[in-house]
Amino acid sequence: MLSPTKLADAFERVTDYWSPKVIGQVNDQLLKAAKLKGELVWHAHEGQDELFYIVKGSLRIEFENDIVDLQQGDFLTVPSGVRHNPVAQEECWVLLIEPASTKHTGEESTPRTRSLEEQLS
Amino acid sequence: MLSPTKLADAFERVTDYWSPKVIGQVNDQLLKAAKLKGELVWHAHEGQDELFYIVKGSLRIEFENDIVDLQQGDFLTVPSGVRHNPVAQEECWVLLIEPASTKHTGEESTPRTRSLEEQLS
Repeated sequence: MLSPTKLADAFERVTDYWSPKVIGQVNDQLLKAAKLKGELVWHAHEGQDELFYIVKGSLRIEFENDIVDLQQGDFLTVPSGVRHNPVAQEECWVLLIEPASTKHTGEESTPRTRSLEEQLS
Repeated sequence: MLSPTKLADAFERVTDYWSPKVIGQVNDQLLKAAKLKGELVWHAHEGQDELFYIVKGSLRIEFENDIVDLQQGDFLTVPSGVRHNPVAQEECWVLLIEPASTKHTGEESTPRTRSLEEQLS
């Protein structure tokens, strides 16, 4: 039996900032719920686009030569290999869509880096 | 320069029922905005999952041995090869996520079938 997921309910499972949880999958892409506050780390995902959809709040994404401000209901695909730094002044809920193999801090390893196993738990 | 897409605004482009418009892409998956009313046709997508996210209204998806009712804010991935028939009693706005190669009526050809070129226009 197939059962739908309520997007808002899926965020209930997310208790820590910058610790995405896998909430769905379509083909080889995972859907992840993340709560963000503050800033993460400059990073890029080689060979992998990453889509941000703002479920609640707002998010600034800094690029090397640009800044994009995303509001609730906006989405943006950060293309493969483009260095970026997400910054949330206030708590922001984000739906991420990215390949199962994407590391959420790219090749950067930080205390905030979470393995896929942690994102599935 | 990257610019965000407002999901609600993207639906403004959609003027016909059952005629999805491509509004974004992440890796090999397309995001499509569709307005549905009535029912489409029983079909399946071999080798391709299809995700339905309900932006406005509600949608019933009939399966051969099941019925799933989706409300605003719900999402469901219809797995590859599973025959289904979407039915919208009232107008429903759906965000679809599926591979670029997915035909929205599967292998069924109906007067409502739209080519990818039509979905990009």
